[in-house]
Amino acid sequence: MDGTGRMKVDRVTLAHGGGGRAMRDLIEGVFTSVFQPPGGEDQARLMDAALKEPGARLAFTTDSFVVTPIEFPGGDIGKIAVCGTVNDLVVGGARPLWLSAAFIIEEGTEVALLRRIAASMQAEAQAAGVRIVTGDTKVVERGKGDGVFVTTAGVGVIPAGRDLGAAHIAAGDAVLVNGYVGDHGAAILAARGDMALDTDLISDCAALGHLMEAVLAAAPGTHAARDATRGGLASALNEMAAEAGVSVELNEDALPLRPEVRGICEILGLDPLYLANEGTMVLFVPQDQAAAALAAMRSRPQGRDAVQIGVAKNGLAGRVSLRSSFGGARIVDMLVGEQLPRIC
Amino acid sequence: MDGTGRMKVDRVTLAHGGGGRAMRDLIEGVFTSVFQPPGGEDQARLMDAALKEPGARLAFTTDSFVVTPIEFPGGDIGKIAVCGTVNDLVVGGARPLWLSAAFIIEEGTEVALLRRIAASMQAEAQAAGVRIVTGDTKVVERGKGDGVFVTTAGVGVIPAGRDLGAAHIAAGDAVLVNGYVGDHGAAILAARGDMALDTDLISDCAALGHLMEAVLAAAPGTHAARDATRGGLASALNEMAAEAGVSVELNEDALPLRPEVRGICEILGLDPLYLANEGTMVLFVPQDQAAAALAAMRSRPQGRDAVQIGVAKNGLAGRVSLRSSFGGARIVDMLVGEQLPRIC
Repeated sequence: MDGTGRMKVDRVTLAHGGGGRAMRDLIEGVFTSVFQPPGGEDQARLMDAALKEPGARLAFTTDSFVVTPIEFPGGDIGKIAVCGTVNDLVVGGARPLWLSAAFIIEEGTEVALLRRIAASMQAEAQAAGVRIVTGDTKVVERGKGDGVFVTTAGVGVIPAGRDLGAAHIAAGDAVLVNGYVGDHGAAILAARGDMALDTDLISDCAALGHLMEAVLAAAPGTHAARDATRGGLASALNEMAAEAGVSVELNEDALPLRPEVRGICEILGLDPLYLANEGTMVLFVPQDQAAAALAAMRSRPQGRDAVQIGVAKNGLAGRVSLRSSFGGARIVDMLVGEQLPRIC
Repeated sequence: MDGTGRMKVDRVTLAHGGGGRAMRDLIEGVFTSVFQPPGGEDQARLMDAALKEPGARLAFTTDSFVVTPIEFPGGDIGKIAVCGTVNDLVVGGARPLWLSAAFIIEEGTEVALLRRIAASMQAEAQAAGVRIVTGDTKVVERGKGDGVFVTTAGVGVIPAGRDLGAAHIAAGDAVLVNGYVGDHGAAILAARGDMALDTDLISDCAALGHLMEAVLAAAPGTHAARDATRGGLASALNEMAAEAGVSVELNEDALPLRPEVRGICEILGLDPLYLANEGTMVLFVPQDQAAAALAAMRSRPQGRDAVQIGVAKNGLAGRVSLRSSFGGARIVDMLVGEQLPRIC
């Protein structure tokens, strides 16, 4: 898997998807030389002692990523593909172990871009403690794709005794977030450039495994967590409240919103509660463990700005409302259409 | 997950990718109502007793599928996505258990097409004994994709004591295939229509798990197997011979080639050894177990036309040659460019 110097062309051609030597050069030169997956077969062969433990379960998830621009302040499609899939595992209480990575590449895409994406994925995987163990590349004709799409799948292990899920949420639970809301969506919007928005916003894109382990150690009674990606905090809360059969009351003053995010939303008529996040999760924790969970989060970079934003109540099942500082309240409904295409 | 009637529109819009209610309707109405994945969280939670057994290993693989046309004689992109990933697990000796399915859908794609793809995936998964347990959908603007791309990842279990791999191939091994070569590539080519090729060819697209278990029961000394997909039989054999450090000598007269495939290749100047297959695998089996392996295959529909096509030798490592009925021999090299874009 010595890939150095194998790829002598600057741009991907259809031949790189054909199954022959050109494809092998692309895969080895750009991807496997960086990821260093185990073995030479079409499948990775793996085992982790934790999976053998009585009561342990396997967690399995996937996401495709089509974010545009492919590179943005705070990340790129590769980083988001690793973080997004890791976080899908993490919010269910799983310890992430292994990722797959499949690339659909448009003819003409710069090989240098692919190298940056691979490096970004590998760096993020190492930080999150996971390995990229298997993958695939396909090439489509110019105009039949858009640069590169990345699909990751992830496998992790849920230790015995852990059972996080929206069904466990109870009235009285504190609703926590680990940090600012809407940064990713606003950063992508600004990065697209067609709005002439000049900001220093960066995506919150981050893997949350270590943070989640800290929360579960400090607040073992934690009922449920979800990463508030596409559809934003509002969609995550609506789904969870409906599944749990509770209502959720948010306190507008407590919502951690950066002034730049607030500003972009005001200019464009967007609601930050629907903006995508890629490193922000929402947690439902029994109120008597909320302080411990917050303290655990605040001691880590990804949770420095953790805060309680609301409470679960015995109200209309599935209703999420936002109470303002003036005493009024409005319903925060499920997003119907979409605010921003290709946000992740 | 009652999806009936949820999708009231005929075509996918960008709103179906936005993370809100429209997306949920698409996912529930078209995909999860068919796949019926367990649980409501972003991850599937799974366990299989076989994974707990001492010495058992987990197998993990992924492939993206961009085949065009999306529907073709003998299958569609959904069937190929299930079969391809199942077969990647199977040729390593794994029993396939679970699949993920991620869809990148172009705006304007017909919902009816997605329904046919989902039904096809579910039917093939059931036949192969696997479950589609987790998934994702993304929508891209018109002209930034091409109908639908599907990425599947698969998890299976390799029982203790099984260790198939090219490294185990030994000089003297019989080289077997389970059936006709090149059907998929030729069928796709004919289906594209721009060649005015009128044939009855259908893709060989099939999941090979049950067949492989039959082979391993009858010929437990089997050294290695690989599905001869993109790049064809020639590429699979070149890779395996190089990894094993043997040469492979094929007997041209023994190669199972349909007259229509031979005809298409003659007209277009293609070599059937490089045509993609989606239900044909090549196996290296000790010569004294070859008859048993062939008999086991021939008793099943996917192996009815199984035959020995060559032998591994102590020759130049990695060299694959084809000996013709006239006594001449030619080198069958690794494919350099590509014969057919988007064959899978």
